[in-house]
Amino acid sequence: MNRKMVFYMFGRIGQIAALLLLLPAVVALIYSEYRQLWSFLIAVAISFVIGTVISSVCRTTNKVIYAKEGFAIVSLAWLCMSAVGALPFVLSGEVPSYVDAFFETVSGFTTTGASILPDVESMSYSMLFWRSFTHWVGGMGVLVFVMAIVSSMTDRSIHIMRAEMPGPVVGKLVPRGRDTAKILYLIYIVMTVVQIILLWAGDMNLFESIVHTFGSAGTGGFGIKSDSIGGYSSYSQIVIAVFMLLFGINFNLYFLIIIGRFKAVLKSTELWTYLGIAATAVCVITFNIHSIYGSIGESLKNAFFQTSSIITTTGYSSVDFNLWPSLSKAILMLLMCFGSCAGSTAGGLKISRVVILFKLILVEIKRMLHPRAVTSVKFEDKAVDKQTLNSVAVYFAVYILCIIATFLLVCFEPFGFESNFSAVIATFNNIGPGFGEVGPMGGFGNYTDFSKIVFSFSMLLGRLEIFPLIIALSPTTWQKSR
Amino acid sequence: MNRKMVFYMFGRIGQIAALLLLLPAVVALIYSEYRQLWSFLIAVAISFVIGTVISSVCRTTNKVIYAKEGFAIVSLAWLCMSAVGALPFVLSGEVPSYVDAFFETVSGFTTTGASILPDVESMSYSMLFWRSFTHWVGGMGVLVFVMAIVSSMTDRSIHIMRAEMPGPVVGKLVPRGRDTAKILYLIYIVMTVVQIILLWAGDMNLFESIVHTFGSAGTGGFGIKSDSIGGYSSYSQIVIAVFMLLFGINFNLYFLIIIGRFKAVLKSTELWTYLGIAATAVCVITFNIHSIYGSIGESLKNAFFQTSSIITTTGYSSVDFNLWPSLSKAILMLLMCFGSCAGSTAGGLKISRVVILFKLILVEIKRMLHPRAVTSVKFEDKAVDKQTLNSVAVYFAVYILCIIATFLLVCFEPFGFESNFSAVIATFNNIGPGFGEVGPMGGFGNYTDFSKIVFSFSMLLGRLEIFPLIIALSPTTWQKSR
Repeated sequence: MNRKMVFYMFGRIGQIAALLLLLPAVVALIYSEYRQLWSFLIAVAISFVIGTVISSVCRTTNKVIYAKEGFAIVSLAWLCMSAVGALPFVLSGEVPSYVDAFFETVSGFTTTGASILPDVESMSYSMLFWRSFTHWVGGMGVLVFVMAIVSSMTDRSIHIMRAEMPGPVVGKLVPRGRDTAKILYLIYIVMTVVQIILLWAGDMNLFESIVHTFGSAGTGGFGIKSDSIGGYSSYSQIVIAVFMLLFGINFNLYFLIIIGRFKAVLKSTELWTYLGIAATAVCVITFNIHSIYGSIGESLKNAFFQTSSIITTTGYSSVDFNLWPSLSKAILMLLMCFGSCAGSTAGGLKISRVVILFKLILVEIKRMLHPRAVTSVKFEDKAVDKQTLNSVAVYFAVYILCIIATFLLVCFEPFGFESNFSAVIATFNNIGPGFGEVGPMGGFGNYTDFSKIVFSFSMLLGRLEIFPLIIALSPTTWQKSR
Repeated sequence: MNRKMVFYMFGRIGQIAALLLLLPAVVALIYSEYRQLWSFLIAVAISFVIGTVISSVCRTTNKVIYAKEGFAIVSLAWLCMSAVGALPFVLSGEVPSYVDAFFETVSGFTTTGASILPDVESMSYSMLFWRSFTHWVGGMGVLVFVMAIVSSMTDRSIHIMRAEMPGPVVGKLVPRGRDTAKILYLIYIVMTVVQIILLWAGDMNLFESIVHTFGSAGTGGFGIKSDSIGGYSSYSQIVIAVFMLLFGINFNLYFLIIIGRFKAVLKSTELWTYLGIAATAVCVITFNIHSIYGSIGESLKNAFFQTSSIITTTGYSSVDFNLWPSLSKAILMLLMCFGSCAGSTAGGLKISRVVILFKLILVEIKRMLHPRAVTSVKFEDKAVDKQTLNSVAVYFAVYILCIIATFLLVCFEPFGFESNFSAVIATFNNIGPGFGEVGPMGGFGNYTDFSKIVFSFSMLLGRLEIFPLIIALSPTTWQKSR
């Protein structure tokens, strides 16, 4: 492999991390949090110096990279951003353990939203801002971000894009990867600004509006209150619920709307399946939790908020859904695995994969009855080629195996089957809260360091859709190129 | 579809059920259990009369059947055998509720071994015999049994075989299905007799030897004591453990041994993977439970017994493994899903599927790195065709979806996540006991009737490898043939 190029990119990522860390430093300055300010500045200095040294040493004329290099760069980017991003928490003393801080930052950048903080309300403004900002950065993928601002990337971007964009198919909007990234990012920024304004118009102040928008846009779920969104007005809750749902839609569809191709949007199988699943879940849960909240309106609102939060893998909560009846909890756990549309900021399996899987099953049944029949799977009005079909089915198998493997690693924890299993589901699908110990009112703080590291990798595996990280971590990938 | 032929076969199956029920009637006579004798005889009369009437009415000259008819016959066979087989339990008053009796009989014929009996030791000899005998009959598949004794089946047997034989590939031993069935059945009988003799030589009496052999041969797991096999000598436990493991091996391999092709046996990937997985599990569990049992010997014996019992989906227990540490329990749950070799009497996914799935994953990784590389999956030294590969991956998806769907149906039960989830795994994979409420010392008796019916279908789905039952239950299958 072209190791020099990989390390060069690694260095550039360090420089970008330094740049990102300047923003919370400004917040610290605004709120006069000087200890925090210094910890951010030290982190900026460390990452800038290391990044610059590595990228200078590894400057190379051979800029050719293939899939292998792309996967390695993406994986390194997430690991490095998380490692550096954890520094301010430790340096400021607000999260004394580095493992805890690393978990929290991985959870941020992977837009998971799982937290080890025992009391989020005691944190400083700048740290809360940084925590939520990692969601926003992670949302569209650190590397799409990197790609949109680092120059001279045009020829290399395709493999990085493939590793980065969530979902089975990357719809190419415009021929060049960099332009695609720019368009997607513009849509992302506009939606973010709109949500901040709408929240600010309600009972949230500007700071609250910004952090909660970051959490929704990245489908992350870090909040700043112990009861998540529970203490805010119904207006704020509904705005957040609607925007979470919007951020779970394939961004290609927004692009199609911009260029006026409404018909293509209305014909999107994935969009309608996504909305259909969400609507069904809301109805069933409303009915199921009706006895708890009395009024239909209140049940509907909570069911809608929680469904939207879970299917988009955000993880905000308006109430403690850990106390809901088993049926509602089981539906939520199912939604956790489904996730939202491909090409959105959400985690999980992605609706398009789920749809293709179901179609594959129907085709298999048909084939059993008529062994010689010619069968094909259509998705979004196009026949899906056999290779993609195969990849989807295999991805599902790997997905389940990763969940099982992770569960085996943490099953010694004393919190019981439901807590441990839902913790695995919640981290691997980048949700955040699960049930029991890790429910919306609990957290990952009581797990051992070993498990926290396992969960950190589980979050990265889920976010990078498994294969890139496995490839990047396998020693054969790092052999010198022949 | 050729409905007449399906119903004709259905009638013949009723007659066979009558024949099978004569055996426990003889046992009832031996032990002078006259009330039980009458209930068996009434069941014999009912099933014989109905069977004869239906098969006479539906006699047809059009004996052509396709996959659809095959699946319908197989599914009907299991349902009908279970429905009739439940009668003696109710008629004798030993299991007052018909739903309970149906669950118990489905559990028997599907070789699951899950029980609703609150106190198995209070049952009569003939009922205990019948319960265990259903395992033995179910073991090689009611239909292989039917095929081996019902005449004029030669041209129709292939589709039935495909629906019946567990595993992704049916290795055809000899050209005609009926001869294959006879050979497999002969091996089965010889092994059964050997196990009975070996057990009888130990501390079990003849009755105990027979019922426990039936339970091991069918990889079922019904016992006659509250503590399953726990009260018997180490010798008996080891004999049973070894035979369970033997009955989990692909029966084709025994045939190959008989015809002297030892090399082919030694080269079997599935066999070595199966033994390798079992050995690894035994080692890890021995280490994990060492502190409970003190001596290495005792831990090893219990680990071996439980691993053998669970990987073969039998479900006997030598100790209450529900009290074991989480790691051991998690490994057992994983083994429950793996199951044993294709072409054995065991349930679960089957080792060959698991192996092919892993190879598919490796191929997918290779393809991501080298998109234009030509890849193929080899199994047992032969390249597996794309259609089979696809089927394996899709089967895995359906398998997981069925588990999720079943779990959603029973999740309202108040026994907690671990009990409900392991109950689904234990029934769907035809194991028997799970953890918590349904652990080796518990049972399914406290579940609601609704859940018992759901679990009954879960057992049937698992035993028939999902698709045949789905196809048989779909209304379009039953449309009149054009």
